[in-house]
Amino acid sequence: MAEAVKLIGAFGSPFVHRAEVALRLKDVPYELILEDLTNKSELLLRHNPIHKTVPVLLHGDRPAICESLLIVEYVDEAFDGPPLLPVDPYDRAMARFWAQFIEQKCSMPFWMAVWLDDGEAREGFVRETRANLALLEARLQGKRFFAGDGVGCLVGAAEFPALRSWAEAYTSDETVSACLPPREQLVANFAGKKDRIKMAVNAMVQRS
Amino acid sequence: MAEAVKLIGAFGSPFVHRAEVALRLKDVPYELILEDLTNKSELLLRHNPIHKTVPVLLHGDRPAICESLLIVEYVDEAFDGPPLLPVDPYDRAMARFWAQFIEQKCSMPFWMAVWLDDGEAREGFVRETRANLALLEARLQGKRFFAGDGVGCLVGAAEFPALRSWAEAYTSDETVSACLPPREQLVANFAGKKDRIKMAVNAMVQRS
Repeated sequence: MAEAVKLIGAFGSPFVHRAEVALRLKDVPYELILEDLTNKSELLLRHNPIHKTVPVLLHGDRPAICESLLIVEYVDEAFDGPPLLPVDPYDRAMARFWAQFIEQKCSMPFWMAVWLDDGEAREGFVRETRANLALLEARLQGKRFFAGDGVGCLVGAAEFPALRSWAEAYTSDETVSACLPPREQLVANFAGKKDRIKMAVNAMVQRS
Repeated sequence: MAEAVKLIGAFGSPFVHRAEVALRLKDVPYELILEDLTNKSELLLRHNPIHKTVPVLLHGDRPAICESLLIVEYVDEAFDGPPLLPVDPYDRAMARFWAQFIEQKCSMPFWMAVWLDDGEAREGFVRETRANLALLEARLQGKRFFAGDGVGCLVGAAEFPALRSWAEAYTSDETVSACLPPREQLVANFAGKKDRIKMAVNAMVQRS
């Protein structure tokens, strides 16, 4: 019998979405356990004491696997089904490079650009985000997905045309759309936690 | 005929060391091209326009592969020889997790703790570094290397006994020691660039 797969997640998290899509593309049945991130459960803290973040993947009795990109690679390697990363080593390296690029150079400055109070610092992050999205845009030119014709690595969105086409192709995919939350619910959720995020981001910058 | 492998590196870089050890463990012949990072070459900027960092791996005519951990995974997958990452998917996930942990949670705060001028901010990074090294120390208890008995994932060092034993075991390895620079040369090199690093680190923090 296959070992049970559980995913600790939270509503609206793009990182959790990434892990869910990986499991669904591999046709792995899983139980989704939703956390309230303002009041983290003992289950989450016990399984991810280092980062205390979602998603966390529990597969049978092994200690948890944390970090969404690591979960994607694990799901790809541990389960049968269509490969998630490209098969060729060089193409795999490129997929990992752009996934990391998005994580480090797009998501972080994007969130800083959205939530920072200090106008000058915020402007710097706006410029950085736009410059890095332009690099992504160039990378996507003429392609349906980052790694070719199928749903490959998973990312954000923007006003650039190739990125917009990608976002449309990505969210239209049957497997993906089955685990996307309704837009209104997502917007309401973000509106509800806006002040808390803003405070955390500004405190983070003041620390350094 | 095997395609030529070139590694763009810089003296004393632990990230370049990581890539060199991977190539040597796989017995891949390579040409090391040393950069002067105060005056980056057209070759480096052309092949790594996004991060502008070393190491950069050139394999045949393909576009470059950047980022040391991605180079390690590529070398592991593209060349025959002993596996660098563990073979079991779960163990691979753990190896990747700790390599990322070291990169994000140990190296960065460590450098901030060493180079920051502001006493209070520096103290925060000292505490963070020590707390995270304690987690690594616990992870290494009773093991020779992070992934078992062979040279596995590659990291820093500290005053903790298990980490110290690891550092000794790691640097005593024949493949590793063959591409480590002499200690005196390394110290002189760091002393020479101390002021420049200090200035860059402090400017980075002031930006945010």
